[in-house]
Parts: sequence; C-alpha cells; structure tokens
Amino acid sequence: MKLCRVGPAGREKPALLDARGQLRDLSGVLPDINGTALSASRLAELAAIPPESLPLVEGQPRYGVPVAGISKFICIGLNYSEHAAESGLPVPAEPIVFLKANSAICGPDDDTMQPLNSTKLDWEVELGVVIGAVGRKVTEDQVLDIVAGYCVVNDVSERAFQMQSSQWDKGKGCDTFGPTGPWLVTKDEVPDPQALGMWLSVNGKRMQDGSTRTMIFDVRAIIAYLSRYMTLLPGDVIATGTPAGVGMGQKPEPVWLKPGDVVELGIEGLGQQRQTVIPYR
Amino acid sequence: MKLCRVGPAGREKPALLDARGQLRDLSGVLPDINGTALSASRLAELAAIPPESLPLVEGQPRYGVPVAGISKFICIGLNYSEHAAESGLPVPAEPIVFLKANSAICGPDDDTMQPLNSTKLDWEVELGVVIGAVGRKVTEDQVLDIVAGYCVVNDVSERAFQMQSSQWDKGKGCDTFGPTGPWLVTKDEVPDPQALGMWLSVNGKRMQDGSTRTMIFDVRAIIAYLSRYMTLLPGDVIATGTPAGVGMGQKPEPVWLKPGDVVELGIEGLGQQRQTVIPYR
Repeated sequence: MKLCRVGPAGREKPALLDARGQLRDLSGVLPDINGTALSASRLAELAAIPPESLPLVEGQPRYGVPVAGISKFICIGLNYSEHAAESGLPVPAEPIVFLKANSAICGPDDDTMQPLNSTKLDWEVELGVVIGAVGRKVTEDQVLDIVAGYCVVNDVSERAFQMQSSQWDKGKGCDTFGPTGPWLVTKDEVPDPQALGMWLSVNGKRMQDGSTRTMIFDVRAIIAYLSRYMTLLPGDVIATGTPAGVGMGQKPEPVWLKPGDVVELGIEGLGQQRQTVIPYR
Repeated sequence: MKLCRVGPAGREKPALLDARGQLRDLSGVLPDINGTALSASRLAELAAIPPESLPLVEGQPRYGVPVAGISKFICIGLNYSEHAAESGLPVPAEPIVFLKANSAICGPDDDTMQPLNSTKLDWEVELGVVIGAVGRKVTEDQVLDIVAGYCVVNDVSERAFQMQSSQWDKGKGCDTFGPTGPWLVTKDEVPDPQALGMWLSVNGKRMQDGSTRTMIFDVRAIIAYLSRYMTLLPGDVIATGTPAGVGMGQKPEPVWLKPGDVVELGIEGLGQQRQTVIPYR
C-alpha cells in the first residue's frame, strides 16, 4: 500500500493510492495514519479493503507528512562513503546518530524556508524507514518485523549552522528542514530496501544520483543498532543518510540553495518530492 | 502554581500542589497538562480556581512528566564554564544545541535503567524551561512571554556513547535518560530564574552544588537564540546545561553510576527528584 495524509497543514486526512494512482479517502476507516495504525494487524486490515470501495479524494490536495504524531526522527550521518569523502570526514566505524527536531518535519512539496542569516542551505535525499512496532534490542534478523514501510526524506541542512559547533542538530532542525513523503510505502512493496535508485535535482540539474545499495550501514544494521540504545516506537522515522552530490561537495565551489530554487528528489518506488526555496518570513 | 501529572506511566492525571503541599486533582477541569493547557489565558483560568475546591488526590501516586505531548526536548551543552573545564572542552562562543529523544523522557523518580554495554553512566542536574506559546524570532525582552514555567531535569548521559562519535544524541537519548519534574512551576513563582540553587547527590554524597547564576548563556539568551533557528512550540522543554560536578569530572578518577546507586537532585523552589539505577532489562 501507498498510505498518505492529504489536505491543508494540520488538517490532513488519511488516504491511500489505488492501483490507478488515484487517491482514496481513508477517513471513514481510521482516524489518522499514526503509530497505532501501523501495526501489522491494522495494516493487514487496511490491505483487506478493496480500494475501489473507498471514496475518491476530490481535486489535487496537498500532501502532508505521511505519518502523524512522530515521536522521534532519527538521522544517520555520513552513511555513504562518497558523501563522507565529499564532506571531508572519515568513513564512520559505527553509525553516527543525530535527531531532527519534530517541528522541522513537513510535507513533501511544502516550501523550504531559508532560515534567518542562512548562507549555506543544502539538500540530502535519503531513504526514510518508518517503524511500525515497539523495538528494543532487535536483532538484524528481526528488524523487518518492526518496520512498517519506507518513504522519501529530504534531510535539508544549513551547513554553517551545522558546523558552527560540534553538534549538528541546530543546522538540521530549522523549520521546513524535514520534507517527508509523499507516501509511506508498506514494506511488502519494497522487497529489497538496499536496491533502490535515488536522485535529487536543483532547478532541473541532477545533483545526486545514487542507490541505497551503497550504504555503509544498511537498514537492518541501523535499526538493530539504534534499538540497543533507545526504544523505537511506532511512527518513528529513521533517515538513513545521503549519497554523494550535496551542495557542500560540489566542485570547484560549493553550491548553496537560494530563494526561488526548486529542489526535486525521489526514490525508486517511493515517489518524489518538489520544494521551492522561499525567503525567511 | 505547581502543576504536575500523577499516576501510573501512561495513565497520569493532571494535578496541582496546594499551599499545604497536598495534591489536588485537576482531571475534572482539564483533560491533561499539555501544550494547549500552558497558554497564558488557560494558566490564568487554572490560577483562578481555589485549590481547596478541587478533590484531594488519594495516596502517594507516582509523579509523571509534568507536561504531556512534548514535541521537542532541546538541551544546551557546556553552559557552565566550570563544567566545560571539567569536560576538557572550551567555553562555547554560542550555545551548543542538541536534542534528547522524546522516548528518553520519564518521571522524576522513575528508575534509571543502565543501557546495554554501558560503562560510563553519568548525571547532570539542569534547569528546564517549559514553553507556553509559539515562539519564533523572539527578542530577549519577549522571552518570558513565551515561557510557561520551569522544572528540574536530570540530563542523564552515557559518556562512552556520547563521545563514541562526534554527535552526542545517542549518549543522551537512551530510555529513562530524561527525568523531568516533579512539577512545572509557573513563572510567577520564579521571579529570577538566574538565582536558583541546584544540587545533586549520589548515594547521599553531594556531587553538584551550583546556581543558575553561573550559566554562560542565560535563559533569555538561550530561548531568543533557539527561536531564530526553529519554532518553539507550547510544551517544548529546554534543558539549560549543568554546573560542575558530573561523574566524568571527578578527581582523581571519574565516577560512574552502577545499579543500586541512588541519585537525588533538586533546584530551589522547583522540587526534587530521586532515581535508583537498575540494570538493563
């Protein structure tokens, strides 16, 4: 299934995409797509509903974040070796874990607002993993049991803020820095999360062109690792790192986003996003 | 007012402490103490209720986190110069911002569970600031307008995890690493948040003995700073750093917590906490 939440910000309704690509309204079936809705049994119930029995969603609504009530949004840093190299940093021996402020999470096509005093606004296409069950001390073999599905994430970053102190969270957590979606694609539709092409363009120019195949720590390793430190909760999202091609790594000079720029990105089978950069307001 | 949430984990009810130190049940007045309940107008409505008109809470219930539905829990690192020195790190030129995983937040007297493979479990008494109104680009003069009140926080830390990579969040975000409370003390009862004594003991031995007076960046500066990067939301908590005396800084050798240890801490006017360290389970 491709689950999503559509409508104005703060008033999204649950929906799913049918086989013809039409949005079907789920609001008569469940109150929202949140952690509770992502259990294996609830997802099986949803999958048993013939999509054509659901009302069509009218018009072309905005896509919101595909899961509501995210408790934590964990990011893995430098998880592709060529991106570590372009960042001038060593390939990590263990996953580098940081958090994105929940207030940064937004819909996949929402505008990216350049923060006040921002000079180094950058992009990062990433595979997001959405947790569907409580996970503590999960083995790599068990990881898929607690995964509900996958989504596209743009881990928008302000490099001057990120590098101003040792801690990256400030430069990763500004408002609009977490476009997520359009869909939560359930894991049954993603037979191998380590074989997905991923790309990102700025103003139509391809900047990132990679594959989840080249992750240093794969999805199983990341989730098992995290679950030894902190309980993973239904609805948690884990962004698994970005391949080479971010603005910071461009040659001969870095390229930074500015108001008016259009960022488009996508992952094979998971849909695509489109953001316009706007000034601070 | 001293607002709190009491009862078993996940089933807390709102309450307040009356002038005689008795718990009064607020569950007939409002559904919970969350961001919505912390607006100036809602707090004024609560303050207008004679506490003796509210039912007494029976027994000696557990204290939960005093605010429900925290969106983000922001921490400021190295915000006391003697603590920066004991950590062997320079006094920062700007606030160091990191995030605590929401799944780490717990009641003030809940057990502290030593994580799997933990070797360097440590403590940090901190003044927590609870946000009551949406804050964006707030000036220092306006900061108190968006503050609802204050609370005690123990920013429990695992130093080996914290220092294993450049990013601290893993070592700050383990389960039970965010004891918060017992109360949210509204700002009218805290005329000067920069004049509060604070202390922490381990097994009865005083380890930290400081004052919020010696913060490098004070509450006004921190909140104004953060609000230029990310929108602060009602219910957000900001932990403002710890004074000297953490386990890592003990001489001649660091002191680490182990199962059976009892940590007690408090801040003048904000109450106290008591945690027992338990093994991983």
